[in-house]
Amino acid sequence: MSNIAIIHGPNLNLLGTREPEVYGSNTLADIEIALTDRFGDEHELRFFQNNWEGALIDYIHDLRGWMDGIVINPGAFTHYSYALRDAIAGVALPTVEVHLSNIHAREPFRRTSVLAPVCVGQISGFGWYSYVLGVEALLDFLTR
Amino acid sequence: MSNIAIIHGPNLNLLGTREPEVYGSNTLADIEIALTDRFGDEHELRFFQNNWEGALIDYIHDLRGWMDGIVINPGAFTHYSYALRDAIAGVALPTVEVHLSNIHAREPFRRTSVLAPVCVGQISGFGWYSYVLGVEALLDFLTR
Amino acid sequence: MSNIAIIHGPNLNLLGTREPEVYGSNTLADIEIALTDRFGDEHELRFFQNNWEGALIDYIHDLRGWMDGIVINPGAFTHYSYALRDAIAGVALPTVEVHLSNIHAREPFRRTSVLAPVCVGQISGFGWYSYVLGVEALLDFLTR
Amino acid sequence: MSNIAIIHGPNLNLLGTREPEVYGSNTLADIEIALTDRFGDEHELRFFQNNWEGALIDYIHDLRGWMDGIVINPGAFTHYSYALRDAIAGVALPTVEVHLSNIHAREPFRRTSVLAPVCVGQISGFGWYSYVLGVEALLDFLTR
Amino acid sequence: MSNIAIIHGPNLNLLGTREPEVYGSNTLADIEIALTDRFGDEHELRFFQNNWEGALIDYIHDLRGWMDGIVINPGAFTHYSYALRDAIAGVALPTVEVHLSNIHAREPFRRTSVLAPVCVGQISGFGWYSYVLGVEALLDFLTR
Amino acid sequence: MSNIAIIHGPNLNLLGTREPEVYGSNTLADIEIALTDRFGDEHELRFFQNNWEGALIDYIHDLRGWMDGIVINPGAFTHYSYALRDAIAGVALPTVEVHLSNIHAREPFRRTSVLAPVCVGQISGFGWYSYVLGVEALLDFLTR
Amino acid sequence: MSNIAIIHGPNLNLLGTREPEVYGSNTLADIEIALTDRFGDEHELRFFQNNWEGALIDYIHDLRGWMDGIVINPGAFTHYSYALRDAIAGVALPTVEVHLSNIHAREPFRRTSVLAPVCVGQISGFGWYSYVLGVEALLDFLTR
Amino acid sequence: MSNIAIIHGPNLNLLGTREPEVYGSNTLADIEIALTDRFGDEHELRFFQNNWEGALIDYIHDLRGWMDGIVINPGAFTHYSYALRDAIAGVALPTVEVHLSNIHAREPFRRTSVLAPVCVGQISGFGWYSYVLGVEALLDFLTR
Amino acid sequence: MSNIAIIHGPNLNLLGTREPEVYGSNTLADIEIALTDRFGDEHELRFFQNNWEGALIDYIHDLRGWMDGIVINPGAFTHYSYALRDAIAGVALPTVEVHLSNIHAREPFRRTSVLAPVCVGQISGFGWYSYVLGVEALLDFLTR
Amino acid sequence: MSNIAIIHGPNLNLLGTREPEVYGSNTLADIEIALTDRFGDEHELRFFQNNWEGALIDYIHDLRGWMDGIVINPGAFTHYSYALRDAIAGVALPTVEVHLSNIHAREPFRRTSVLAPVCVGQISGFGWYSYVLGVEALLDFLTR
Amino acid sequence: MSNIAIIHGPNLNLLGTREPEVYGSNTLADIEIALTDRFGDEHELRFFQNNWEGALIDYIHDLRGWMDGIVINPGAFTHYSYALRDAIAGVALPTVEVHLSNIHAREPFRRTSVLAPVCVGQISGFGWYSYVLGVEALLDFLTR
Amino acid sequence: MSNIAIIHGPNLNLLGTREPEVYGSNTLADIEIALTDRFGDEHELRFFQNNWEGALIDYIHDLRGWMDGIVINPGAFTHYSYALRDAIAGVALPTVEVHLSNIHAREPFRRTSVLAPVCVGQISGFGWYSYVLGVEALLDFLTR
Repeated sequence: MSNIAIIHGPNLNLLGTREPEVYGSNTLADIEIALTDRFGDEHELRFFQNNWEGALIDYIHDLRGWMDGIVINPGAFTHYSYALRDAIAGVALPTVEVHLSNIHAREPFRRTSVLAPVCVGQISGFGWYSYVLGVEALLDFLTR
Repeated sequence: MSNIAIIHGPNLNLLGTREPEVYGSNTLADIEIALTDRFGDEHELRFFQNNWEGALIDYIHDLRGWMDGIVINPGAFTHYSYALRDAIAGVALPTVEVHLSNIHAREPFRRTSVLAPVCVGQISGFGWYSYVLGVEALLDFLTR
Repeated sequence: MSNIAIIHGPNLNLLGTREPEVYGSNTLADIEIALTDRFGDEHELRFFQNNWEGALIDYIHDLRGWMDGIVINPGAFTHYSYALRDAIAGVALPTVEVHLSNIHAREPFRRTSVLAPVCVGQISGFGWYSYVLGVEALLDFLTR
Repeated sequence: MSNIAIIHGPNLNLLGTREPEVYGSNTLADIEIALTDRFGDEHELRFFQNNWEGALIDYIHDLRGWMDGIVINPGAFTHYSYALRDAIAGVALPTVEVHLSNIHAREPFRRTSVLAPVCVGQISGFGWYSYVLGVEALLDFLTR
Repeated sequence: MSNIAIIHGPNLNLLGTREPEVYGSNTLADIEIALTDRFGDEHELRFFQNNWEGALIDYIHDLRGWMDGIVINPGAFTHYSYALRDAIAGVALPTVEVHLSNIHAREPFRRTSVLAPVCVGQISGFGWYSYVLGVEALLDFLTR
Repeated sequence: MSNIAIIHGPNLNLLGTREPEVYGSNTLADIEIALTDRFGDEHELRFFQNNWEGALIDYIHDLRGWMDGIVINPGAFTHYSYALRDAIAGVALPTVEVHLSNIHAREPFRRTSVLAPVCVGQISGFGWYSYVLGVEALLDFLTR
Repeated sequence: MSNIAIIHGPNLNLLGTREPEVYGSNTLADIEIALTDRFGDEHELRFFQNNWEGALIDYIHDLRGWMDGIVINPGAFTHYSYALRDAIAGVALPTVEVHLSNIHAREPFRRTSVLAPVCVGQISGFGWYSYVLGVEALLDFLTR
Repeated sequence: MSNIAIIHGPNLNLLGTREPEVYGSNTLADIEIALTDRFGDEHELRFFQNNWEGALIDYIHDLRGWMDGIVINPGAFTHYSYALRDAIAGVALPTVEVHLSNIHAREPFRRTSVLAPVCVGQISGFGWYSYVLGVEALLDFLTR
Repeated sequence: MSNIAIIHGPNLNLLGTREPEVYGSNTLADIEIALTDRFGDEHELRFFQNNWEGALIDYIHDLRGWMDGIVINPGAFTHYSYALRDAIAGVALPTVEVHLSNIHAREPFRRTSVLAPVCVGQISGFGWYSYVLGVEALLDFLTR
Repeated sequence: MSNIAIIHGPNLNLLGTREPEVYGSNTLADIEIALTDRFGDEHELRFFQNNWEGALIDYIHDLRGWMDGIVINPGAFTHYSYALRDAIAGVALPTVEVHLSNIHAREPFRRTSVLAPVCVGQISGFGWYSYVLGVEALLDFLTR
Repeated sequence: MSNIAIIHGPNLNLLGTREPEVYGSNTLADIEIALTDRFGDEHELRFFQNNWEGALIDYIHDLRGWMDGIVINPGAFTHYSYALRDAIAGVALPTVEVHLSNIHAREPFRRTSVLAPVCVGQISGFGWYSYVLGVEALLDFLTR
Repeated sequence: MSNIAIIHGPNLNLLGTREPEVYGSNTLADIEIALTDRFGDEHELRFFQNNWEGALIDYIHDLRGWMDGIVINPGAFTHYSYALRDAIAGVALPTVEVHLSNIHAREPFRRTSVLAPVCVGQISGFGWYSYVLGVEALLDFLTR
């Protein structure tokens, strides 16, 4: 059994209402229920969404002792938050980066992730299913 | 009658004391009084200043149901806060970007606005009067 | 009472017929009438449109003695006419740059204004109303 | 039941022997057996590895009528094969791009995928498990 | 009478089915028939399509003794195949580069041709008629 | 029968005397006679050469009602005249861009056309014959 | 006697545990004790660490009246927080920028400080001793 | 005896009044008188100032038969007028480029001359005396 | 005794006929005979030329068990074939890169080798003698 | 007791007379006396100033056996002397880089140090006191 | 009467023998005799050529008290010697930069002068006559 | 018999002691003995090492009459010494550039040689054996 933190960055609380043609119509609650249904029996999941960079950093620091790994959708912080990057590097836990949309097929600024160099891997473009894949990827990594 | 949120980004609370040769000698309170005098009879204005990126995002989310449009001076967030950009795009309300100084005549990093592509328009360089013009521009837009 | 020159750069004579989804359906004559209605009682306005860079420069030189300030929509010259920039700097009169569309939300080449560093400020994205705001901004500047 | 082509680009035939610290110790045969074990009962999988750009393009063209989607690890072609990109765009079938290593954490030239803009999404960094996730992602996409 | 090789690069075998809104609905066979109808009485034409860079290079080498000039639509190889460029330079025969779509009006990567510096000229944007113009241009060049 | 404007940009009046090793020894008059011989029976052609950017723009505006399409050799304006680009976009008529020399094989600054994105296509490198091909391309386009 | 604020940016609370080979094994508490031992008799020091950009800005604003100068280790905010830069410029107090590691010898993105242009100077690379040097530098500056 | 055209580009008619701290207090008439005094006995000088790019090009074309060489201060056209460059290259007469201010010590955009590659040489930074040096340089060149 | 593969990339089969002023007048056969004469008594050499990137990759894979090292002239693949680079890295055998012409003295695109980082060293500019030096360099390396 | 070489690069002999508003009014002799006063009892200091890159390199080589570390103000060599960089790397002794002015707040070319990657750390902006801090930093480093 | 130092940078001692098609056939001695003939009666000239950057810097320092101004041909140091730039800025004497060839018409690296921002002006392209013009320009400057 | 100058740039006197894992353990004396053993009977070799750019330039000038060619390891001057480049171009003798390490596989700044365009060829990456190959390459060149 693994303890997994699933972290959502800025504006993901709008999910389901915000630009549904890009991000799909599921809400964050929908996604969290689906993930719990799928993985909740065997693993402990904690969810956290916040629009504040500092809150995400604190959360990662605070769960350092509890969690075995992180699945994070950093939202727009993907592209500039070196502080979040340093937080992930600082706790030194396996982290999987996920994105709803295929960031490599969008505006040029969205194609660069400053977090990627400190993550295990990246999953991008599969809507809410990116989270499912992200948890699976992390679990596989933890059993190696 | 329109509901308008007037949002000030980081360091604008210092207005009137900070580098007055660049930003003028009016305080934020002065500006807000002037705007209320001018537009307050016919429209409802709410003012918000904050130095925290997350607070600005939350505020925009929270007023989603109330407001008809936004006038925002994003301060230094203009140049890098893709999270704020996504917040504006996410609530999908008409937004006017204003700047006290002419950002296109200053240091190179100040000439790029990452918010502009999701705003109706931009007004830059007229001191506190940029806000007046910004509200007028928004009101004109809302009546089209 | 102020004397104000309102200058339109290349292709603005096509206004109302050219790409109306970008530039609106008002003609230049419509705009000039609206501006005269609004400001003509208290201020003297002169209008000038030309597709020739040299004509715009000559006009600015010629009105040097008469005018108190300029509102200019430089059209495509915005992006490369250093000669027009030098003309504005040369007469040393307060100049407000206006654009119908939000140039900061369009093709990359349209996001740079070579004129901005010698202008008081820039207004961009409000259709013909950009001119109204431009005149107001100039008048406010002249009374400081 | 879906028909899925699983395509491996150049040098992936060396898998298991080539730089195992980067790419892991499983051979391509191992991966294909594992994928068949996991998905072969319900779906039809066809595997293809080739070091020749033209062979990959021909293969994609040829299976156009049979397959419902593609999982492709383009190897080094990821970074420059616009011809492969056009092949994927040309057959207009959902394609998932997978990478064994986290390309966004390696040399700068490996961080750009010229194929990404014509793919559904990208999975990068999970060793041979990237293929598993890729097939799952494609199957999920096909059922939407 | 001239001997002319008409060479089609990768994915052009999909013509007529691939993205018809970009590339038109004529197949390669249609084009070749039309070209033969138009020029076949007076000139000898040979057609070659291949998705393999090496096949195109070999073909150019092999027809060195026979052909008087080349009309080539290099497809995506236009943008990166320095090997194809060296093949054209190596046989030192007049070559006309043609494109169905106007490559200078598409994605930035499509605006650069690494072959152009070793070709007589370039024709871009006229659908299958680009080939007709290309043959005419080559014939005119050969008679100078 | 189509009405076609054939427009020559700056310095093309020097043709035949200017750098003949680059531009050939035909004068502009020679070219216009040849074009009239070839197309004048079935189509109406009007020719215009000017070294003034504004004159070219005015000419395009003025013939808006008469002409069905444009063949333009923009000379050096190709590389920086966004005003000319906007004129072409503004009249919204099919335009073919032609060049005597192969601009993609010359100095780097000549390889970029700011007009190309608003033209049907581009023909470059065939001396005066580029005009012949340009008219043919336009006529073909007009009959689609 | 001088009042000095010593400010630590994001992730510095992890000091001593985070990547000790880069940042050393002293905790922030160790450093603060050492600084107090060394400078506390003659000067008043206040310490503040926070992972939230907004909190750092507020703190700088709030201590404006009390402090004579700032020693700041901005952590990852060094590289992108124009808001923090404006806060320092806004309070117009002498500020010394310190870094534990030699940022000019690390990844390219760490070599640029957006804060440097508004600071007195920068000290980088001496582990916790960078703080000692920073306080000395500030005290020397204050006595000029 | 040589025939020399001395050509002044845009905004130079403002000389003496425009930014005298940059360009000095001599008017263009003063300069022309001084040049005539100095060189008028032995050489024929013709002066031409114009703010219109096309007028400068026409003038250069028209004097082709009369003049032996050109001294040109292209003003802001220095930085973008490829059409003027082609005019100078087209008439193939020795041309000396002069500038009042030291363009290599000013804003970055002023440090590049698109005309320089087709001129004999460049003189920059000596106020009106740059013209004197320019004529001397041209005369020396003509006697080689 | 060492086993050495000598591999020639695209267009090198044209050697002796292709641009002899750049590449010399020896054919590939001449070079291979000369190399055999010089090194064939003591070492086993195998030669391979191919215009197909895939063929080169396969060849390198196939000879993995036999050869002790590689001398490769990658031709134009030098500048973009990351697949060839990965093939060399994948077999992990010492490889010397040779070029007939001095690639660092030619067009900018020829100055970058994407293969160099996985090779022992590079020899460039000595015509067919580059191969001789390359074999010597490899032999020296193998005896260290 | 440590042996420390304090090395001054080009133009530092002008100190006290050269641009005192940037570099202060202390001469190099003043600085050396102050450093000797402060550190001379416990440590041996040797001073060297030279305007010749080669002299600085030779000096570093020559003192290799004697010195324990280096404090260097490389002057303008900071920005381009890879030879000096290799000298420091070559002797492999701890080196502290100091600057009188804050190089990160000056012209862009001054913000890059090619020496920094081979130094322990960098101190910049504190006038002659940068040397004091530099020696302290080095001594602290030597005692770790 | 003025005291003028005329300084020649690296490789100028080869003048007359080195690439005469670029630099002319006069030797440095010829030039110095010609300058003495022309200016030696009224002014004192001292000549200095050296291939050593440090020697040029020392020379400029040493003549600080004697000379009224400098005419310098920095040779290749033009493009990278920030140390020479600082020497000129440090002595704060009017300096004229001269070049034999037109550096703005040559290889890209020769088009940038790192010295220009600290010089009065620049003269480039007139062979040995550039020196004559340089002395005249300096004398004119000294009499203002 | 040929006269060959073998020139070593800055820091190569440290060879054998400096970073032996990069540069090997042979000293310069070892290399020179080995080269003399190998080539000294038939050719005259002169060796020169210096850390001073000017000394290298003078040496090249001075041996102009004696030597038939140069083998040079420019050390760090490879990357910025345009003066050394001009010295080699100035004496117009065949020059072979050698490097101990494979500069194309190291830091980006080491991958560019400003000398390469004036050299016959470049040999890089074979330790002291690069010199042997360099002399062989030069001798072969001299006998063509």
